[in-house]
Amino acid sequence: MLNRSAIAAAAVRLQKYIRHTPILRLTARELGLGNPVTLKLELLQHTGSFKPRGAFNRLLSTGVPAAGVIAASGGNHGAAVAYAAQTLGTRAEIFVPELTPAMKVSRIASYGAHVVQTGATYADALAASRDRQAETGALEVHAYDHPDVLAGQGTVAREFEQDAPELTHVLAATGGGGFIGGIAAWYAGSAQVISVEPQDCPALHDALRAGRPIEAPVGGLAADSLGARQVGRLMFPIAQQFVAAAVLVPDDAIAAAQRLIWDRLRLIAEPGGATALAALLCGAFKPPDGAQVGVLVCGANTDPAKLVPA
Amino acid sequence: MLNRSAIAAAAVRLQKYIRHTPILRLTARELGLGNPVTLKLELLQHTGSFKPRGAFNRLLSTGVPAAGVIAASGGNHGAAVAYAAQTLGTRAEIFVPELTPAMKVSRIASYGAHVVQTGATYADALAASRDRQAETGALEVHAYDHPDVLAGQGTVAREFEQDAPELTHVLAATGGGGFIGGIAAWYAGSAQVISVEPQDCPALHDALRAGRPIEAPVGGLAADSLGARQVGRLMFPIAQQFVAAAVLVPDDAIAAAQRLIWDRLRLIAEPGGATALAALLCGAFKPPDGAQVGVLVCGANTDPAKLVPA
Repeated sequence: MLNRSAIAAAAVRLQKYIRHTPILRLTARELGLGNPVTLKLELLQHTGSFKPRGAFNRLLSTGVPAAGVIAASGGNHGAAVAYAAQTLGTRAEIFVPELTPAMKVSRIASYGAHVVQTGATYADALAASRDRQAETGALEVHAYDHPDVLAGQGTVAREFEQDAPELTHVLAATGGGGFIGGIAAWYAGSAQVISVEPQDCPALHDALRAGRPIEAPVGGLAADSLGARQVGRLMFPIAQQFVAAAVLVPDDAIAAAQRLIWDRLRLIAEPGGATALAALLCGAFKPPDGAQVGVLVCGANTDPAKLVPA
Repeated sequence: MLNRSAIAAAAVRLQKYIRHTPILRLTARELGLGNPVTLKLELLQHTGSFKPRGAFNRLLSTGVPAAGVIAASGGNHGAAVAYAAQTLGTRAEIFVPELTPAMKVSRIASYGAHVVQTGATYADALAASRDRQAETGALEVHAYDHPDVLAGQGTVAREFEQDAPELTHVLAATGGGGFIGGIAAWYAGSAQVISVEPQDCPALHDALRAGRPIEAPVGGLAADSLGARQVGRLMFPIAQQFVAAAVLVPDDAIAAAQRLIWDRLRLIAEPGGATALAALLCGAFKPPDGAQVGVLVCGANTDPAKLVPA
């Protein structure tokens, strides 16, 4: 199972390529909550999400063939793989589903990748990318279910612990589980790691209830970034051991969190990027008195015009 | 003249009320420049600009009469005064000119202040606010030309030096000069402080040439935040002694900087907030080899839809 030394090794590997994203400490009063909250502004990472951590770690840990790399993604992972490939001088082919927003498609293309938009959801795009990979021999960069990807994502928690060692609870959004899996593996019980999913994308919530990864619905506001049909095999035992709770939030709480993040902080968070904070704001997760709460704000790839009232 | 001990005293006074805003270190390659650049993300301050530093310091340093406080502003200072008044439980009346964007007017009102929109530019709104102040006896909170306001703004430089002590050059945008004056007073020659103004709002540039504050044009993209007709009397001797250069940038460089800040960093900067970085990007200021450059990104109060391509 993934451990802290693999994550620390990834952090060394990534140092030249990844931004050490800043934290912002908020008083309880600022958010109208009972506890102070420390945000990690991972939405300021290269390409506007945490995904380059895993993508770079995968590419740097493995020899990349002449055929380059291939990935399926709701958008953010694709942008990260494209950016990493461009930075490291290799080619990338990215499969995205129809639900991927136009701005994410154009962002992937802006890094020089070839984009194929096909299928209804991430799972369909993944199937198509695997057919293509069998033809080309390119290196598959899975969005979450690979040890190097998990270790890369875990570096976000290493930074968070360095900068805010007092945290007792850390909230992060979950899609396929690479992010929460890496984070939970880093903290390994030293802080309570809380998974937050939209009610319409409950893959980890449902898996933990079932005792194994199972197929879950995919829908709603954050489906392009959190809409994995099933969590990864590798993250699941980590989650069973080290995810303290898996909570669900409705879409209107996510939209309200996006608006608050703009109104009070002047940051643009995409729905998936605002999902973890939404759990605090709507009360889906209530930290105990005296808790030192950390929240990952992990993605910014949305059209700001959609969330700012005219 | 304003000195470091007055700024340090202000920082103690402000501690409960102000965010210690984060820095973000960028490699030279990321911005296509010859030097690495460290940004201070002061646009994440309460109300979306640096202005609460000076506003809180003024209110906390002085007894506020029952009539409350009154201020004239292009928008950001007014929002800061309104926010400080609301936080400290007093009333605020804010005068803004016609050029103030609607979003800034509604932001000021959202903090419970009474807003009066009158006159073409900041100078006209200031004159109207002074007539009104003579009637009400409210405490005037000048946007820049007061020792407590200057000392409050200077606390941004104290934080920046704490977090990035290696900086050799610090760039900041200049309007009436409260921000650059406070920053220059803090560094006092220990780093080169560079003033950046739009070509259409050259108040400090023109004053330094003339050897005294003189009237300058007010226009262009950033006029609502940087459009003071004349720099403050108090900041001018500080600028003469400690501002190493006062450079000008065209509006198209400011707009390009705003787009880059969104594209590469996923931050929304208003024109005045992007002006200092624009000087680096367009070459209006060329740091020497080996310089460690810091840039204040100081305001976010704009409609993001205007700067993000559809």
